[in-house]
Amino acid sequence: MTVQRILIVSGTHGNEINPIWAVKQFNREENNFKNGIKYEYIIGNPIAYEKGSRYIDVDLNRSFKKSQNYYQHKNSFYEIDRANYLVDQFGINGSKPCQIAIDLHTTTSNMGTSIVMYGRRPEDLCLAALLQNKFGLPIYLHEKDKAQTGFLVEAWPCGLVIEIGSVAQNFYDPKIIDRFLIVISTLREEIDKLKNNLVELPKELVVHVHQGSIDYPRDDKGDIDGLIHPERINQDWKMIKKGDPLFLDSNGIIYKYDGDQLIWPVFIGEVAYKEKKIAMSYTKKEVICFNKQWVQEFESL
Amino acid sequence: MTVQRILIVSGTHGNEINPIWAVKQFNREENNFKNGIKYEYIIGNPIAYEKGSRYIDVDLNRSFKKSQNYYQHKNSFYEIDRANYLVDQFGINGSKPCQIAIDLHTTTSNMGTSIVMYGRRPEDLCLAALLQNKFGLPIYLHEKDKAQTGFLVEAWPCGLVIEIGSVAQNFYDPKIIDRFLIVISTLREEIDKLKNNLVELPKELVVHVHQGSIDYPRDDKGDIDGLIHPERINQDWKMIKKGDPLFLDSNGIIYKYDGDQLIWPVFIGEVAYKEKKIAMSYTKKEVICFNKQWVQEFESL
Repeated sequence: MTVQRILIVSGTHGNEINPIWAVKQFNREENNFKNGIKYEYIIGNPIAYEKGSRYIDVDLNRSFKKSQNYYQHKNSFYEIDRANYLVDQFGINGSKPCQIAIDLHTTTSNMGTSIVMYGRRPEDLCLAALLQNKFGLPIYLHEKDKAQTGFLVEAWPCGLVIEIGSVAQNFYDPKIIDRFLIVISTLREEIDKLKNNLVELPKELVVHVHQGSIDYPRDDKGDIDGLIHPERINQDWKMIKKGDPLFLDSNGIIYKYDGDQLIWPVFIGEVAYKEKKIAMSYTKKEVICFNKQWVQEFESL
Repeated sequence: MTVQRILIVSGTHGNEINPIWAVKQFNREENNFKNGIKYEYIIGNPIAYEKGSRYIDVDLNRSFKKSQNYYQHKNSFYEIDRANYLVDQFGINGSKPCQIAIDLHTTTSNMGTSIVMYGRRPEDLCLAALLQNKFGLPIYLHEKDKAQTGFLVEAWPCGLVIEIGSVAQNFYDPKIIDRFLIVISTLREEIDKLKNNLVELPKELVVHVHQGSIDYPRDDKGDIDGLIHPERINQDWKMIKKGDPLFLDSNGIIYKYDGDQLIWPVFIGEVAYKEKKIAMSYTKKEVICFNKQWVQEFESL
């Protein structure tokens, strides 16, 4: 295995502060170099963190677009500059090249401890499978969403998002911090085991594949006129079927799921997604057989 | 009883959105006039609500200062203007004079459904006692705090804050909305009963009296370097004694309560109070005998 450096990013969204604290606790000298791998810890969006906001100009975790050629957009938006800087520093051709990026996020939705991935790169599948095998973590495979692109981890050869909730923005919760510490430690252990051929490979990987997102009901002015229905709130990863309630408007009218397919909603009521006009995203469950080639790809990173 | 108009304010803080939704549900024609009392519903800080922020320039709920003469500060800050406007419109000498103001708030702390009052005005004590008698709601008597003044309800002859949590900023939670609907309905019922001499007066009132506030541990740069201790988080209204843990810093050091008096902390870890350098406020429990004069004062409002 050729992995030499791993990047751990916290605070990609400045108001998701629990991962920043977890990294602060974790980032001690004895944790920065282990079994031949150097760990780099960085706050993704330090200015937004200082202000307690998600971002300054645009969402940093939508600012890593290959097509835009990082170097042509300097000085337009803070987050575009910041994306350029992070790739310059820690990208695979950067001054401290990292082969893997782990991006730590929180959500106001009741997602529990979960993994988000943005495609089916074998290296990502390998890493996700190891973590799921260890903890049974649910995985949101957020692929083929044209409305949302430019995610941080996509700018590295291998990368995952760890997404933990529910927790309020800007609110320190020791339980959430503990969960991040456990995930970071385990991730390192699993990578070390893999390196020494000590890992037990799982047989399969269960993913929840993105199908689309739906907005809240809105009134004539475009203002939200519907709450997440009480039966739906906090029910991330739970299957729904036709006729199950989704929203409740101010007149007491219930909006129901009208599709014929079984659906597993995620990011239900995430506060930060209101501006993206997303009340929840729909997923379908899929089982993928573990492929030993994933390990080979991972090992040749 | 001479009460003719009651003002119900939601969204005094723009990112506390559940009361706004509750009022939207409640504010129907049949609810605007009841038993000779007209109810006025207003969003305290509509611009901050639109932006999803607590305030634009300064905290609206610290902007109702008698000493500053509302009319001399026009155009300096949006919230000062707004405070002037609300008093012009709905103040006791305003164009639609209200005798009572009820200000609806949420908190990220685990305060449950609670009442906040800012002094011992007999009219406020009467109203608070009725609500407590009905529900057993805890009351935070936030008095004699020189660092914090200018609360909205103080600008009316009688007024209470209803404070419900925990709920994240900008996050709709049907359970929290339901609690507001219940409190608003009950408040109206109790006032109607009082008007018709049908109310059963309680014998006493239990309040938690403000003693002071404490900040988080901070590092040399002034950044927060301590979480609310896991044993303390969500434990609002629960008594602590000398030696009980308060904070946990990034080195694992525990900060303990060092006072000799028994203390009941409230607003533990409230996100919005970080900028005020408040990690929690200390209170002492006090039992006040119900005084029938409170009712007389209330009746002559």
